[in-house]
Amino acid sequence: MANIPYKTYLTEAEVPTKWYNVRADMKKKPAPLVNPGTGKPCTAEELEHVFCADLVKQELDDTTPYFDIPTEILDFYRMFRPSPLIRAYFLEKALGTPAKIYYKFEGNNTSGSHKLNSAVAQAYYAKKQGLTGVTTETGAGQWGTALSMACAFFGLDCRVYMVKCSYEQKPFRREVMRTYGGTVTPSPSMTTEVGKKINAEHPGTTGSLGCAISEAVEAAVTTPGYRYVLGSVLNQVLLHQSIIGLEAKAAFDKLGVKPDVIIGCAGGGSNLGGLISPFMGEKLRGEADYRIVAVEPASCPSFTRGTYAYDFCDTGRICPLAKMYTIGADFIPSASHAGGLRFHGMSSTLSELYDQKLMEAISVKQTDVFAAAQQFARTEGILPAPESSHAIRAAIDEALKCKAEGKEETILFGLTGTGYFDMTAYQAFNDGKMGDYIPTDAEIAQALTKLPKLG
Amino acid sequence: MANIPYKTYLTEAEVPTKWYNVRADMKKKPAPLVNPGTGKPCTAEELEHVFCADLVKQELDDTTPYFDIPTEILDFYRMFRPSPLIRAYFLEKALGTPAKIYYKFEGNNTSGSHKLNSAVAQAYYAKKQGLTGVTTETGAGQWGTALSMACAFFGLDCRVYMVKCSYEQKPFRREVMRTYGGTVTPSPSMTTEVGKKINAEHPGTTGSLGCAISEAVEAAVTTPGYRYVLGSVLNQVLLHQSIIGLEAKAAFDKLGVKPDVIIGCAGGGSNLGGLISPFMGEKLRGEADYRIVAVEPASCPSFTRGTYAYDFCDTGRICPLAKMYTIGADFIPSASHAGGLRFHGMSSTLSELYDQKLMEAISVKQTDVFAAAQQFARTEGILPAPESSHAIRAAIDEALKCKAEGKEETILFGLTGTGYFDMTAYQAFNDGKMGDYIPTDAEIAQALTKLPKLG
Repeated sequence: MANIPYKTYLTEAEVPTKWYNVRADMKKKPAPLVNPGTGKPCTAEELEHVFCADLVKQELDDTTPYFDIPTEILDFYRMFRPSPLIRAYFLEKALGTPAKIYYKFEGNNTSGSHKLNSAVAQAYYAKKQGLTGVTTETGAGQWGTALSMACAFFGLDCRVYMVKCSYEQKPFRREVMRTYGGTVTPSPSMTTEVGKKINAEHPGTTGSLGCAISEAVEAAVTTPGYRYVLGSVLNQVLLHQSIIGLEAKAAFDKLGVKPDVIIGCAGGGSNLGGLISPFMGEKLRGEADYRIVAVEPASCPSFTRGTYAYDFCDTGRICPLAKMYTIGADFIPSASHAGGLRFHGMSSTLSELYDQKLMEAISVKQTDVFAAAQQFARTEGILPAPESSHAIRAAIDEALKCKAEGKEETILFGLTGTGYFDMTAYQAFNDGKMGDYIPTDAEIAQALTKLPKLG
Repeated sequence: MANIPYKTYLTEAEVPTKWYNVRADMKKKPAPLVNPGTGKPCTAEELEHVFCADLVKQELDDTTPYFDIPTEILDFYRMFRPSPLIRAYFLEKALGTPAKIYYKFEGNNTSGSHKLNSAVAQAYYAKKQGLTGVTTETGAGQWGTALSMACAFFGLDCRVYMVKCSYEQKPFRREVMRTYGGTVTPSPSMTTEVGKKINAEHPGTTGSLGCAISEAVEAAVTTPGYRYVLGSVLNQVLLHQSIIGLEAKAAFDKLGVKPDVIIGCAGGGSNLGGLISPFMGEKLRGEADYRIVAVEPASCPSFTRGTYAYDFCDTGRICPLAKMYTIGADFIPSASHAGGLRFHGMSSTLSELYDQKLMEAISVKQTDVFAAAQQFARTEGILPAPESSHAIRAAIDEALKCKAEGKEETILFGLTGTGYFDMTAYQAFNDGKMGDYIPTDAEIAQALTKLPKLG
C-alpha cells in the first residue's frame, strides 16, 4: 500500500465546477426526442409544459461542451462530494490478480446512490424558476429519496408516486422520503385521472413504473407551479452525472494513473453516462483510448439483445419518443431485485455511442452478481447495491482474465451505491433462494412488435 | 464558506497510528472490575477465560498513555477512516446562530456507526491469538454488524446472539450480518444451557440484552478456540474508540481551531469516551480546558439520576462487577428506539471522570431528539441514528443558547452513525405516534435496591 493511497479525495479547490456535455464532442449526435403526435422533434416549448425551462435548455443543447455548475448546487455537493476514488487493494489481494482495480464510490450519502447529483440540480432549477414543487415517480425508491432530500434543502414541495407494491414492501424507503418532507403516494392512486382509470380497469393492481410515470406527469401538468422531473435516461441527467467522471478523471490525473478499462452498470444510463463522460470525450477527440464496458442484467438486456429504434420511455405511452436500444416498452422485466436496472430502454446518448462502437456491452446473471456483491462486501467492507454489483461482477471477471493472461490492466468501475435498503434481495441470496430469469428470444421479439411506427 | 472547508479529511499520512489511553493521565484511576465471587479485583488470568489475552492487557493497563495500532488494523481503518470533520454550515444558517458547529461523522461505513473501530481491533487480536472465532450479543444490531464485518476480513468465525424480538423485527440487520458470514442466533436459544433454562422458565419470551450476553459468554467459555467480545463499556473499547477524538483533534489543529464545548451521546460510553479522550487528556494535564457534555436519554438516565456504585454489567448477573453510574442492572428501560443507549450503567472511566466533575451530563427526551434528527437531516443531508441524534439535540440547544446570548462558541459533537436501519422509529415520529417515557424516582430507587453488596 505504498504510492497510491487507498482512498483519493479531491480537495474542495480541486472539485470540478462545470459539468461536461459529451454530446458536444460527438460528430454524429444522438437522435432527438420526438413528439408521438406529430412525429417531429419535440420543441423547447412543448417540453417546457412538462420540464423546467433551464433543464429543457440543457436537454436540447448538443453543442455546448461545458456548463457552469451554479454556486447553490456546488454548495449542496459539498455535503456529499467529492466522492472518493478507491483503490481496491483488498479485492485485488483476494483475487490474486496483477490488475489494478479502482472504484468511484457514490454511495456515501443518505440517498445511498449517485442519484443525488442530478436531483439537487433539478430541484435547484425548479426553485430558480419560482416553482412550488416537483413530481416524480419512484420504483425501488433511490431516486425518490434523492429528490426528497434535494427538495427539503431548497424548500420545494416534492410529490413522489411510488409503485404500490414497493410502497407496501419497502416501507423504510418511504419513511426516509417522508422524513425529508416528501409526500409519497402509492400508485396507481385516486389522485389523478389516469390513476382512477387504471384502478377501475385493474381493481387491486399493485402498479408499475409506467403507471407511476403517467400519474407523476399528469400531476405536474395539471397543477399550477409544478413540473415533472426524471432521474435517468435524459441528456440533462447525464450532464449532471458527468460530475462522477470528472472527479474520477481529476483524481486519476492527480495520481498520474490512466485507466485501461472503464466499467459501469447500465439501466437507463445515468451512472454509466456520467462516469464515462470525460473519458469518452477524450476518445471522441482522439486524445486517448479506453475500453468502455456497459453491464446490464441478463433479465433486461436492452444493449445486448435489443434493437436501436424509436420507442416510448414509459409503458403508459404518454411521454416523448426516444431513439434508443430497447427491448420494447411493453417488455415486463422479471421481478429482478436490481430495480434500478429494470428499464426497457437506454439513454439516447449512450445508445448512439454504442451504435458507433465506441463502447461495449455485456449482460450478467443475477446470482453471479450477488456472489460478486458478497465477495466485495467481505473484502472491501462496503455492502453494495444490487445495481452497482453488476459492475463489480464485470470488474472481477476482467481482473481474473488479467490473472489468467498475466496482464497488469488498470480497471475503473463505478460503485453507484449501497444496498442497505435491499436486504430482502440479499436474504434471498443468503438463503439460496435467488433465481435467474433470462427472457427468450420470442419474448423480446414479441415486445418489439409493438414499437411505434414513425413517419 | 470561505476559510474553513465544509469537510476536513486528514491525509493517510496524517492519520493517527496510536490509540490514546486517557486513564494514564488520570490521577485518581477508574475503579477496577471486581469478581463477584471473591469481591476482589479481577486478575488477568480470570479475565483471559472470557476475553483475548492482548485485550485483557489493554483492559487492565491504566498507566501506558499510547498503544501502537497494529499495521493490520491500520490497513482495515483505511477502508472507512479517516472520517470527516464536518462544519455544519447549513445547520448554523438554519438556526441563525453565531456558534460554529462541527461534527465528527462516523457513519460512512456499512456497519453504520463507530462500532467498527473497536470491532476490527478485537477481531484482529482474536486472530493473532490463533482463535477460531468470537461470540457476542447484539440488540439493535450495530455492534453485531460491525463485528461480522471485521471477522469476515480476518477469516474468523463470528457467532452473534441477537435479542429474539430484534431478530424478528429487524430482519435487515440480521441479513447484513449473514452477508458478512456471521451466524445469527435468536436469544434465548436452545444452543446454550442458560438459554434452555430461560426458555423453560419463560416460555415464549422474546429475550433481553442481559440474556443474550449470558448466552454469548457461555458459548465463548464452553467452546474451545472462542472468546467473548463486547462493544462498549470496557476500557479497551474506549481505547480503540480514541481514534475518533484523535482524528478530530488533528483536524482541528490543522484548521487552527479549538472547540469550546464537546458533546457526545452516552449509552455505555464507547463513542463519548473515544471522542473526548485527547481533549480530556489535555484537560487532565492542565494544558487546555473544554466543556464536555454527555447526553443520555431521559428514559435511561444513568449519569443524571443514577448512583455511583459497583453493579453488574448484565441483567443475568454472570459478568464481573464494574463501579459505575448506574440505575441498577434490574432496571428495564422502556422500549426506546435508541437501542444503543439503553444500557443501565456507564463506562467506569467516564463515571470516574464525571464523579471528578471533569464533565457534565444532561438528559433529553426522545420526541425532542427526533425533532432534532429531522431538522438535521433536512439541513445537513445525513439521516442520523437515533443514538447520535441525542448529541444533535444538545448541540442545537447549545447553539440556540449562543444565539440568545450573542456568543460565538465553537461546538463539536459526535455523529456516531446513520439511521438507515431505524426507519420504524422515524415512522413513529413521522406519524406523530412517538411517545416519551421518563422513569419515576420510585422506579429507579426500586432497581437500585438490588445493587450487589460488596465487602
